[in-house]
Amino acid sequence: MSDRRQQHSHPLSDLEIARQATMQRILPLAQTRLGIPEDQLEPYGHYKAKVSLDYLNTLDNRPNGRLILVTAISPTASGEGKTTTTVGLTDAFNALGTMTMACLREPSLGPCFGMKGGAAGGGYAQVVPMEDINLHFTGDLHAIGAANNLLAAMIDNHINWHQNDESGLDNRRITWRRVLDISDRSLREVITSLGGVGNGAPREGGFDITVASEVMAILCLATDLKDLERRLGNIIVGYNRKSEPITARDIQAHGAMTVLLKDAMKPNLVQTLENNPVLVHGGPFANIAHGCNSLVATQAALKLADVVVTEAGFGADLGAEKFFNIKCRKGALQPELAVLVATIRALKLHGGATADTLDQENLTALAKGFSNLARHVDNLRRFNVDVIVAINRFSSDTEKERSELMDYCRELGVQAIETDHWAQGSQGAVNLANACLTALSETTPDRFKTLYPDDMFLWNKISMIATELYGASEIVADQKVRDQIRSYQAHYGHFPICMAKTQYSFSTDPHLKGAPNHHVVPIREVRLSAGAEFLVVICGDIMTMPGLPKTPAANQIGLDEDGQIIGLF
Amino acid sequence: MSDRRQQHSHPLSDLEIARQATMQRILPLAQTRLGIPEDQLEPYGHYKAKVSLDYLNTLDNRPNGRLILVTAISPTASGEGKTTTTVGLTDAFNALGTMTMACLREPSLGPCFGMKGGAAGGGYAQVVPMEDINLHFTGDLHAIGAANNLLAAMIDNHINWHQNDESGLDNRRITWRRVLDISDRSLREVITSLGGVGNGAPREGGFDITVASEVMAILCLATDLKDLERRLGNIIVGYNRKSEPITARDIQAHGAMTVLLKDAMKPNLVQTLENNPVLVHGGPFANIAHGCNSLVATQAALKLADVVVTEAGFGADLGAEKFFNIKCRKGALQPELAVLVATIRALKLHGGATADTLDQENLTALAKGFSNLARHVDNLRRFNVDVIVAINRFSSDTEKERSELMDYCRELGVQAIETDHWAQGSQGAVNLANACLTALSETTPDRFKTLYPDDMFLWNKISMIATELYGASEIVADQKVRDQIRSYQAHYGHFPICMAKTQYSFSTDPHLKGAPNHHVVPIREVRLSAGAEFLVVICGDIMTMPGLPKTPAANQIGLDEDGQIIGLF
Repeated sequence: MSDRRQQHSHPLSDLEIARQATMQRILPLAQTRLGIPEDQLEPYGHYKAKVSLDYLNTLDNRPNGRLILVTAISPTASGEGKTTTTVGLTDAFNALGTMTMACLREPSLGPCFGMKGGAAGGGYAQVVPMEDINLHFTGDLHAIGAANNLLAAMIDNHINWHQNDESGLDNRRITWRRVLDISDRSLREVITSLGGVGNGAPREGGFDITVASEVMAILCLATDLKDLERRLGNIIVGYNRKSEPITARDIQAHGAMTVLLKDAMKPNLVQTLENNPVLVHGGPFANIAHGCNSLVATQAALKLADVVVTEAGFGADLGAEKFFNIKCRKGALQPELAVLVATIRALKLHGGATADTLDQENLTALAKGFSNLARHVDNLRRFNVDVIVAINRFSSDTEKERSELMDYCRELGVQAIETDHWAQGSQGAVNLANACLTALSETTPDRFKTLYPDDMFLWNKISMIATELYGASEIVADQKVRDQIRSYQAHYGHFPICMAKTQYSFSTDPHLKGAPNHHVVPIREVRLSAGAEFLVVICGDIMTMPGLPKTPAANQIGLDEDGQIIGLF
Repeated sequence: MSDRRQQHSHPLSDLEIARQATMQRILPLAQTRLGIPEDQLEPYGHYKAKVSLDYLNTLDNRPNGRLILVTAISPTASGEGKTTTTVGLTDAFNALGTMTMACLREPSLGPCFGMKGGAAGGGYAQVVPMEDINLHFTGDLHAIGAANNLLAAMIDNHINWHQNDESGLDNRRITWRRVLDISDRSLREVITSLGGVGNGAPREGGFDITVASEVMAILCLATDLKDLERRLGNIIVGYNRKSEPITARDIQAHGAMTVLLKDAMKPNLVQTLENNPVLVHGGPFANIAHGCNSLVATQAALKLADVVVTEAGFGADLGAEKFFNIKCRKGALQPELAVLVATIRALKLHGGATADTLDQENLTALAKGFSNLARHVDNLRRFNVDVIVAINRFSSDTEKERSELMDYCRELGVQAIETDHWAQGSQGAVNLANACLTALSETTPDRFKTLYPDDMFLWNKISMIATELYGASEIVADQKVRDQIRSYQAHYGHFPICMAKTQYSFSTDPHLKGAPNHHVVPIREVRLSAGAEFLVVICGDIMTMPGLPKTPAANQIGLDEDGQIIGLF
């Protein structure tokens, strides 16, 4: 993932660093650092554990810790380092004596076998045991896949046995798709139920990757098992011949799906390389879903720690916006501070530099690309959170580039701190942590506000995001799409918006770097996630099932003579 | 599953009994009962653990315990009780002071949501935690599914990028199928890669249920991770345009598959209701595969316990035959005793009684149906193992039926013991355990022999099984099938045979109860499992992907107010 191996000429791979870590047993760590009794934890091996939901319920009366979001400028091929910053900052807070937990997303298994690389941080800012976290972990994604596909089987089973039922599902109007946690382009579009009457009624369908399942989004927004079951029941799986929606509840699938997910709902406790506790739980797509770890994990961490550092997918225009407008709204979270991660290399890309020239000083490109950072800062402030820019250092950054970037930030009135946690762990993020502590001492959690109220019209919510955050002049849509949005207004008008657009630009054109203005945001399609309780607004090609490259990483993955994994990271 | 709820008028369900169990923590149980140090176990919650393969390797020099197989007469709708007998007998041995472990198969998740019922024993002869074992357990089946489907994705990816490669896979000759651990008839036959060039080359394919994957059979026969990787590499995924086989090794998938399976290879330790240690590991289909738990688990148990009780799928004609001829051969196991489970109800069904009359005394049907038991006894003795008949009691059994059955067994020269472990736990199987101990004291492990040698011709191996065990007069096959068998002779002639036929009859006609003679066994198809290292001989319709019934159990499954599962068992 990205060019972080170039960050410094570090001799060790992420995996080698992770293997050198001295992990603490998770049960005693949870007991001594968080006060969680051993019998309220379910160990998965000696270094991973699920936290009991019953135990978490007993913490309701505790005050909440302070909530910090780590987000980033618009991503580039260069990579910014949100996860490493989240981990490094967490370690730095703890090194300074502030009890702090990180909340991260669970990686998807599928892409590990396509492009080499894991998703548990990197360098000396990692979460461990990193191989487990990147492979099956505690089975959450498998459980989500099973629940998703049980629903699919029950849909086709319903069609098979209720063909003549006027009120039943219309075979031509099934919207629910199957999932697998694998990158497999050949499953994107399939025809199922071939082979005759015994195999059901043929129809077109397809598979997404598991993290794109609405079940994942639901698991990450549900407040408890009851809320999980309610939301699963609300999933719209298709329509009957009168075009009326049919839900998972209508075909009585939601109870069994909840049973399959009862363990997956429990947050997963692991640790950083510096033995600080981290919850890694849930990981929905950041385009067709909201791209943050589970609400349950974040709420648990807020009860267990004085400070909680979490991250959201993609750049702040998508990740932070959805974190604030969807997750914080639904969970009544009160974030106080956003750390905006940037790199000089990425800013130069935004300013027109090409990838092969990033090692060379380029003050012109840096000055031009700064517009991307500036707009993200402006946007974040609209949510009434404090903003600190974290400049993730690379060895190619020149003195001049560094000082100019600092000047730009000063002009913008935003504090900027250089970090080097990738190479130095907590020590590389102590300055950032100190700046955050100062900022927290000067703010209060009640300042946070969402961008739009629940009762604003859906169309106006979309328009507000596009014009006020993306810098667009307007949103446009075919009459058909407009009609669809209007049809959702009565029942679902209070839902927040989940924008699905390219992460590479404020606009819908991935090549428009920097901070484009006066562009138009065309809405291609809207999809109702009635269980997750948001309206997905699709503005461009959104890939929900990746493919493998010509030479997939899997070709080189295996076990060495000692049974150690090679080729995975 | 069967009518075991009628076995006695017991007021509690299996689930209620399981919930009343006082489980012991698995780490101390493993330490005190088996001497396994805590750091050689990976806990999954407090009551399940995986045993380290490195630790098991250190036991190589220990002597083996004694190996007992629990098998059954040809199954009927009535159910016989192999798993409950295995568990009850294990508890009874331990109650008598003989350190004994059971080795069982892992249940498939999919069917739980179709027909109500679990697969971890029943009544007071159960393995716990039964809900976990029946749901995701330790994730082995999910890992097998992921490995199977990674291979499938890599196959289609290979086709996508190597269309013009003469030596590459022929899109029309792919034999590898995808899997899901769900009952879903609509996935049996599908067309994939629709939607244009970006989604690959369309072809016909299909899904099996996960336990039917060759990966499952391989995991259950592999001796260690190296052997696992070797066997995975040998899987034939399809053929090139010259009809030459292409393997998983050819497309470099076997290493990554091994990485996905490295934890699944470790046996899972749980306990009986009476707190005796049990390994539950692996569960291949008993038709297209060999139907026994993993070799690794059985070998581990033989090092850890004085007596090991294990079971094999279906009746003895399929399950025991494959256990002996495939698993024991490959693993150099030396079983000494077979316990043949029968019920009076099932014998009456074999003798022509109908299911609705089983509560009534029917000595004629019993006498007639005894032929089924008698042939299984004869067959088992061909492997030079001692045989004891275990009559699993039902409250409907009459005194007269019971004494006549005892008489028949005496005439046959086989010891028969009534058991009532379902209602009484270990006490209900103490007589059986004592009989087994006496039998073991009179035999030695070196007596066991397989039915046929490795170097017998494939055709003759099949013929020997059919004529000598099934009572058939001959096997027949089309010239095409004969040619195929002949073509495998050179490279795979040393492979054992894996018969896939109906479990309900010695013949290939499920309605031919009792002990039919002079029937013909038609071979419809042969399939080479080059990784599992056996030749599958298909004699009849074999379903590798179940469907859901009109009213699936899933409709009633959910969590109650206290978060307890309802409707699953």
